[in-house]
Amino acid sequence: MKLYTTPASSFVRKCTVTIRELGILDKFELVPTRWPHTWGTHTVPFRADFADASPVGRIPALVTDDGIRLTDSSVICDYLNAEFGGYRLCPAAGKERWRVQSVISIANAVLESQAFRRAETLRQKSDKPHEYSQDFVDKMIARQDRCYRVLDGMVRDFPSTPDLGQIALGAACGISDFRFHDVWRPHYPRIAEWYEVFRQRPSMRATEPAETPTEPDVTVAAR
Amino acid sequence: MKLYTTPASSFVRKCTVTIRELGILDKFELVPTRWPHTWGTHTVPFRADFADASPVGRIPALVTDDGIRLTDSSVICDYLNAEFGGYRLCPAAGKERWRVQSVISIANAVLESQAFRRAETLRQKSDKPHEYSQDFVDKMIARQDRCYRVLDGMVRDFPSTPDLGQIALGAACGISDFRFHDVWRPHYPRIAEWYEVFRQRPSMRATEPAETPTEPDVTVAAR
Repeated sequence: MKLYTTPASSFVRKCTVTIRELGILDKFELVPTRWPHTWGTHTVPFRADFADASPVGRIPALVTDDGIRLTDSSVICDYLNAEFGGYRLCPAAGKERWRVQSVISIANAVLESQAFRRAETLRQKSDKPHEYSQDFVDKMIARQDRCYRVLDGMVRDFPSTPDLGQIALGAACGISDFRFHDVWRPHYPRIAEWYEVFRQRPSMRATEPAETPTEPDVTVAAR
Repeated sequence: MKLYTTPASSFVRKCTVTIRELGILDKFELVPTRWPHTWGTHTVPFRADFADASPVGRIPALVTDDGIRLTDSSVICDYLNAEFGGYRLCPAAGKERWRVQSVISIANAVLESQAFRRAETLRQKSDKPHEYSQDFVDKMIARQDRCYRVLDGMVRDFPSTPDLGQIALGAACGISDFRFHDVWRPHYPRIAEWYEVFRQRPSMRATEPAETPTEPDVTVAAR
């Protein structure tokens, strides 16, 4: 299977951590992509194979050996967990499935608010910096804070083994540190305590965020 | 159960069509909300019960009788289909599940591009119209067009009975007509042909888009 990636995307990281937790890395070709900073407001040119993998034009994008194309990180994780993980990272049904899915959807809202905030700040660095909205960034930070506050109360129900909810939250914490240098630990002490342990997992250490290559060639492409 | 709604949201419509297709409308209290047009760039004040239902501050938001809170339209539909629908609108596993999920995730990208485009145009009507980015709107339209093109090729695999993928695509077509008056039918003739039939379903007719009340009181609240 092919998974299109960048090291800076928390949505990609949900998938690569899931792949490592399920021990199925050998089934994948991970295809690195590069993105010019114009992605915040412009469609960047796509290489043909990436365009074919995902009409959305976002990463992650998964193409399975039998031609299934999945373009949403939560759907990709659901697929991997069901087809290759025996539902080890989230049950197929029942109350525990919805607890995990509830964590995922709130953590995803953090990931989205981080991605939108990043896209907005790229307007500042563009040739139209007047299009930057500090109000919108503040809205995204407020959403992130509300979600972290609720997640801080959900940590007590986390099992001692990893699941898709914890993976999504771990990806969010990683971006708060890497991209925004947010001071979040004093405000969400239960998340902080949990994360100090969770981030030490080999799956997390092997996928720590790093800058996405922008390179002179603006084609989104394998390096 | 409580579902927070507005008539203009295609993400809400995915849920309300699913509820009607599963014949479980009697299990729900649908709570209408109102949103001032500042939502594009500002956190609007939330009524306490809505804030409690969803830290994300978006609709739809579902609160079940046993206190599960789900804040993502696809997760809500997955929950309703699993717990109340016997997987009638999407199988629990196997190849057909991933075909449906693939349609959902591409149709969702259309819904998101429509929502972001709408939010951006609200900047034009704000007191900071210089923050509007035509480039970003063009990017969203290009994403929508790429997704519709691929979905047009996926229509041939649609079964004759409704599923969660068709419901998501139907919601997207509804917004293209209602909000944007996009000329899309000549470009995506298979979607157009399928939609002419699908939109006649009672579940679709009962949930046609309408403007979200803004009302003088800016509190997001039941009317």
